[in-house]
Amino acid sequence: MNAIGASVPRLEDDRLLRGLGRFHDEIVRPGQLWLRVVRSPVAHARIRGIDTAAAAAHPGTVAVLTAADLAGMPPVPVRQPAPGIDFTPYLQSALADGHVRYVGDPVAAVLSEDPYLAEDAAELVALDLEELPVSLDARTGADLHPESWRGAGATVGTVDFAYGDVDAAFAAAAHTVTTDLRVGRHSGTPLETRGLVADWDARARRMTVWGATKVPYVNRRITAQMLGLAEHQIHMLETDAGGSFGIRGEFYPEDLLVPLLALRTGRPVKWTEDRTEHLVAANHAREQEHRIELAFDAEHRLLGLRGEAWMDTGAYVRTHGAVVAVLTSAMMSGPYRIPACRSRVHVVTTNKTPVGTYRAPGRFQHNFVREHAMDLAADRLGVDPVELRRINLLHGGELPQQRPLHIFGAPMLLDGKDHLDHFDKSRELFGYEAWREEARQARTQGRLVGAGCAVILEKAGLGHDSAVVDIGATGAIRVAMGGANVGQGVETVMAQIVAEEFDVPTGSVAVVLSDTDILADGSGTFASRTTVVGGTAVKLAAEQVLAKARRVAAVLLGAEPEQLVVHAGCLAVDGEPERRIALGQVAAACYTPQFVRTGEEPGLIGRGTYAAGAMTYPYGAHYAQAEVDPGTGAVRLLRYAVSYEIGRAVNPALVHAQILGGTVQGIGGTLLEDFRYDERGLPLATTLDEYRWPRAGDLPDIQVEIFEDAPAPGNPLGVRGAGEGGTAGVGAAVANAVRDALGLTGTVGALPLHPDRVMALIRATDEEEEAI
Amino acid sequence: MNAIGASVPRLEDDRLLRGLGRFHDEIVRPGQLWLRVVRSPVAHARIRGIDTAAAAAHPGTVAVLTAADLAGMPPVPVRQPAPGIDFTPYLQSALADGHVRYVGDPVAAVLSEDPYLAEDAAELVALDLEELPVSLDARTGADLHPESWRGAGATVGTVDFAYGDVDAAFAAAAHTVTTDLRVGRHSGTPLETRGLVADWDARARRMTVWGATKVPYVNRRITAQMLGLAEHQIHMLETDAGGSFGIRGEFYPEDLLVPLLALRTGRPVKWTEDRTEHLVAANHAREQEHRIELAFDAEHRLLGLRGEAWMDTGAYVRTHGAVVAVLTSAMMSGPYRIPACRSRVHVVTTNKTPVGTYRAPGRFQHNFVREHAMDLAADRLGVDPVELRRINLLHGGELPQQRPLHIFGAPMLLDGKDHLDHFDKSRELFGYEAWREEARQARTQGRLVGAGCAVILEKAGLGHDSAVVDIGATGAIRVAMGGANVGQGVETVMAQIVAEEFDVPTGSVAVVLSDTDILADGSGTFASRTTVVGGTAVKLAAEQVLAKARRVAAVLLGAEPEQLVVHAGCLAVDGEPERRIALGQVAAACYTPQFVRTGEEPGLIGRGTYAAGAMTYPYGAHYAQAEVDPGTGAVRLLRYAVSYEIGRAVNPALVHAQILGGTVQGIGGTLLEDFRYDERGLPLATTLDEYRWPRAGDLPDIQVEIFEDAPAPGNPLGVRGAGEGGTAGVGAAVANAVRDALGLTGTVGALPLHPDRVMALIRATDEEEEAI
Repeated sequence: MNAIGASVPRLEDDRLLRGLGRFHDEIVRPGQLWLRVVRSPVAHARIRGIDTAAAAAHPGTVAVLTAADLAGMPPVPVRQPAPGIDFTPYLQSALADGHVRYVGDPVAAVLSEDPYLAEDAAELVALDLEELPVSLDARTGADLHPESWRGAGATVGTVDFAYGDVDAAFAAAAHTVTTDLRVGRHSGTPLETRGLVADWDARARRMTVWGATKVPYVNRRITAQMLGLAEHQIHMLETDAGGSFGIRGEFYPEDLLVPLLALRTGRPVKWTEDRTEHLVAANHAREQEHRIELAFDAEHRLLGLRGEAWMDTGAYVRTHGAVVAVLTSAMMSGPYRIPACRSRVHVVTTNKTPVGTYRAPGRFQHNFVREHAMDLAADRLGVDPVELRRINLLHGGELPQQRPLHIFGAPMLLDGKDHLDHFDKSRELFGYEAWREEARQARTQGRLVGAGCAVILEKAGLGHDSAVVDIGATGAIRVAMGGANVGQGVETVMAQIVAEEFDVPTGSVAVVLSDTDILADGSGTFASRTTVVGGTAVKLAAEQVLAKARRVAAVLLGAEPEQLVVHAGCLAVDGEPERRIALGQVAAACYTPQFVRTGEEPGLIGRGTYAAGAMTYPYGAHYAQAEVDPGTGAVRLLRYAVSYEIGRAVNPALVHAQILGGTVQGIGGTLLEDFRYDERGLPLATTLDEYRWPRAGDLPDIQVEIFEDAPAPGNPLGVRGAGEGGTAGVGAAVANAVRDALGLTGTVGALPLHPDRVMALIRATDEEEEAI
Repeated sequence: MNAIGASVPRLEDDRLLRGLGRFHDEIVRPGQLWLRVVRSPVAHARIRGIDTAAAAAHPGTVAVLTAADLAGMPPVPVRQPAPGIDFTPYLQSALADGHVRYVGDPVAAVLSEDPYLAEDAAELVALDLEELPVSLDARTGADLHPESWRGAGATVGTVDFAYGDVDAAFAAAAHTVTTDLRVGRHSGTPLETRGLVADWDARARRMTVWGATKVPYVNRRITAQMLGLAEHQIHMLETDAGGSFGIRGEFYPEDLLVPLLALRTGRPVKWTEDRTEHLVAANHAREQEHRIELAFDAEHRLLGLRGEAWMDTGAYVRTHGAVVAVLTSAMMSGPYRIPACRSRVHVVTTNKTPVGTYRAPGRFQHNFVREHAMDLAADRLGVDPVELRRINLLHGGELPQQRPLHIFGAPMLLDGKDHLDHFDKSRELFGYEAWREEARQARTQGRLVGAGCAVILEKAGLGHDSAVVDIGATGAIRVAMGGANVGQGVETVMAQIVAEEFDVPTGSVAVVLSDTDILADGSGTFASRTTVVGGTAVKLAAEQVLAKARRVAAVLLGAEPEQLVVHAGCLAVDGEPERRIALGQVAAACYTPQFVRTGEEPGLIGRGTYAAGAMTYPYGAHYAQAEVDPGTGAVRLLRYAVSYEIGRAVNPALVHAQILGGTVQGIGGTLLEDFRYDERGLPLATTLDEYRWPRAGDLPDIQVEIFEDAPAPGNPLGVRGAGEGGTAGVGAAVANAVRDALGLTGTVGALPLHPDRVMALIRATDEEEEAI
């Protein structure tokens, strides 16, 4: 019974290392056709006409669809409504109807016998477009065209979170600090691009769909509604996925086109996104412009926070609705004691790729904006930035604390144990004071070295999930749950939770993820909720199995259920190890008339559902030591460290890997990755030469420390969710380190910290110093 | 809410009539291989050697397997143990090891790229066989070779059912009657022969198997155990089936060979039985030799019954174990008041095809033996055969009655309402007295016309079954249950049961049968139990859905759950029809946080399990009027009628069709069908020229009357099971009619009543008359 907490090797790796992974592109159906999507080459235009004749006549072409072929079909809905905001006018149809609104907007679908012929045919689709003006900036472009969102620049809605009397707080403040900060446009760009295979079985009247990897049950419902099928006519099957990061697996236009074409042609249809498509078609993320104001009393205690932000949602509102805006806004106070706060975010359309939730959505932004402003405030107040944080961090005596807000309908209960204590221990652990001293020494030698830190507040685990655990008469144990294997090792984690209950090797537990036939409902893998919510459902299901096994085994062993202990997959009478029975034998007995009861499922099967009443709030700290090349503006990270309080690690090695990977992604978004556009709205990063991933040479040795000081009180596993904390604080810590290195009096202004931006900061500082 | 009881058209027919049925042979998997089984050409031999070289070298051959390749693999187990009998020595291995024991015994398996090449290669497998003596008669051959069952003629075990002091009853009797009767060897021979397709997915580590149609969950467990897989690694999928009748879908040697070869080769494997194979390989049935003794008091009341029988189980004991013997033996008293009874059946091996349960197993036999003996007794006692039955039939005042026996562990509770009343009403309805009078008149004109009747006791509905009913947010309703669609219309019946609960059209309910992924456990379709047990599970599942829907809808409508009534797929406040909500909308609400609860499955999903504590006992009467051709001995049925008390008919048209079809099969077994063997054990009926199915021209107009006077008290639907009553009484009624036509003083002696047998009876009667 020590499966939980052990860094057991990943169960997934056996098949992956032997080349037996189940990625969507490896699904080959007899007679399958290939979809190629024709996309808009311009950012904004009226469609005067689409000539598909040449494409239709091309060898191999089976069908060419345009919006006219989808008449009456609704656009892709949002899956998370936001009170007070009507997204309807901003939803994306599967194929653009009348106008195209970003480069990459799907306008036609070509179905062919061959993937290469499909590409050739797609190029023959002739678009007659009348170009229109573009809107590319959410702040300056907001309501440029109030008469019609069709020109973009429309405000979809404003998300507003407030508590306390914030204007009074500012009126009473001894010091206030105000700054504007911008976060660049980047996103999750998984190694494996998206793709889908759909196969309609006219005999069974059922569609099988491979490739949905985030919220398959939601996608099944949307597919059914759009195609006029019943949910049960659609079978979504898990595949492996080469990364997800929140952007893979949402319902995109292609998620309708692929099954629709399978249904219409009666043949299997496959679609695999190419890299350039991916970089313009899959959700972008992050781009926001912020104004933040902080009010302090004379003792440097925070009295209030005012924030306003403009979120660039791209040309349409996709499935997440306003989730990013909500999480940016509601969590702006972070882990601090702030008596009054008002934070609002305007969701604004532009003629760019629509955005979605990418690892730590909103939190990358609010942590960056608040923590960078805190360093600015420390300077202005003449106090050490570490000390300013220490003064204001929530400590043990104040926690748990109900912040007077609701997020997604759930009360915002800060369930941490002691943010201050975590920060203190964490700095001590990494020797952060030595980093700072080292940087100071380097600077005295003329090097541009700085150190920065950030305390972060994360969130995880809202919603519900279900699981089913069964033990067969052969003794085989299986768990099915609603998560997705996107590389994080969820199979291993779920197997550990089950193995713990039955005291068996983790490797003996088979795991099925998001097979909509085997498990009736599941929520998916997003928002660091799989272990918190899904894992708890798994535990509840396993406990149910064990309860029945105890009852039946007690009869078979002539004992009382309470006398039985679990040992190595058996139930034994406590103290009499020879009086035992294997769970498989108990399962076999459960199918005999003696133990089958009306109203109770036969066999050893447990169904668990866990509905989290509130989110859990993991927290941590990020530390960076950076050196700037004064000649090029290049930022080199010398040291990096993350501490993260996650309550309990089911598999520490996997948590470590997740935090590490997340940190690397954060570094990418902070220093390298940038979806830039030219003034006509043409994307400048459509290959991996232009959209720069972090590589090993870009990275320092990253230290990760998992804290298990504060088990989450809301779930029986005590877990807090660990998927996003590595990403959430990087922008802040690195910006603070660069600010320190350059000795800025202001802020870095914007992310990413590309050499050109850093050079500009260096030049501005030099001018400032010269002016003195 | 009038779906139950309506003769709605079959839902199955839409796909079947459009050529979209899902028969196993229509499953085509990319890269599939074909299995051909090499079978023994002799009835008993030692295998000196098998030379597979030529077959292996044949074009297309992928593998040739013999018993040596299955070393260590257990034989096919029985699925129904019989207390006190050890079947182990008599079980069949997938491939014969050392000896072959009947013509058709599988000795090798050839796997080829092509089905025709597979046949050719199979003919190249050279068997070196040393022929051994054969045993072909269960009664005279029993224990011919007590030293070893390998020569066949071994008594596997004896099934013995007794109550009361039967010897005292006979000692006190005023009259006793003794006779020996034999039932011939025939079986279910469905239009579609057997077949299986298995596909091993090495990526998912799962086997999909199409073609299991009777007890797929049992077969899955056996497959898993034999292959060393977990049950959950095997996905059994429903197919349509062109008839089953109890013999299709048991676990046969081929049910191991097909998935085993798929696992070993990593390629899909298909096997489709040809007709000649089918006639020697699929279970035979029925062959039994009986002695029956009846004891009467002076008022013609039955005092006791003694029976002894020898059941020919063929060369091995197959999955049913001793089920046929148990049902023959335990039910021998039939629907009569018999104070003391002892009936035993010896299960004996022979060198013939193994047998199994075929429609009305045991009941075709016991009803024939008892009812034909009753007619003999009536003659001997000088009482009218109808009157003799009336004197002895259980009447309302005596029912329900606990017969002091247990069948399959369940008490034998005769749950009928009034057997005498049924018999009286039924004769009246069909005008049976007029049939008899008509026959008498015909005989006065020199024609050999006679009338006969039989009262029958059937049984149905033991065991358990499970079902899951769900309503999606689209409003789509689905039910999954553990039955099999073998032509009887089970999809329609299950849809009706669900439609009744939700007041929706039957056609709007989708039905999934025996998909082991969608439904975790099910029992299958056999023993007239699908509607009784499975249908009740479906009803319980639907009730569970409705209970949750009521609770949630009450909140949404601002009403109390008890106020709500079901109307046309909606819940409405009683008396306020405009305050209503569709079940699909309720389902959608059930996925929202407001209604998802820890410990309760989300959505509108109900899981029902029903465990029948005892069987239900349907009953009825058969009537025949027959004319014998004095020149050829051919029996022509002039009239036939069946009345059957089934408690409640969910779909009267389907029940009618089942009884009709069953009667036709009974006529086949009584007059035409006969698996004869020559003295070396070579089968004489290996084509449909030799094994004669009844055809339209062989049949009279058959009247069927369904009685619903006595709803089964044990299940909420009140159903009794209707699948086998058409078959169970034919042997008896026809034999009695022929006996009447010929004016026999003795019995017909044996079934089937082939012309040669009938001519022999005519000649014996003539000689008898001449002797007078």
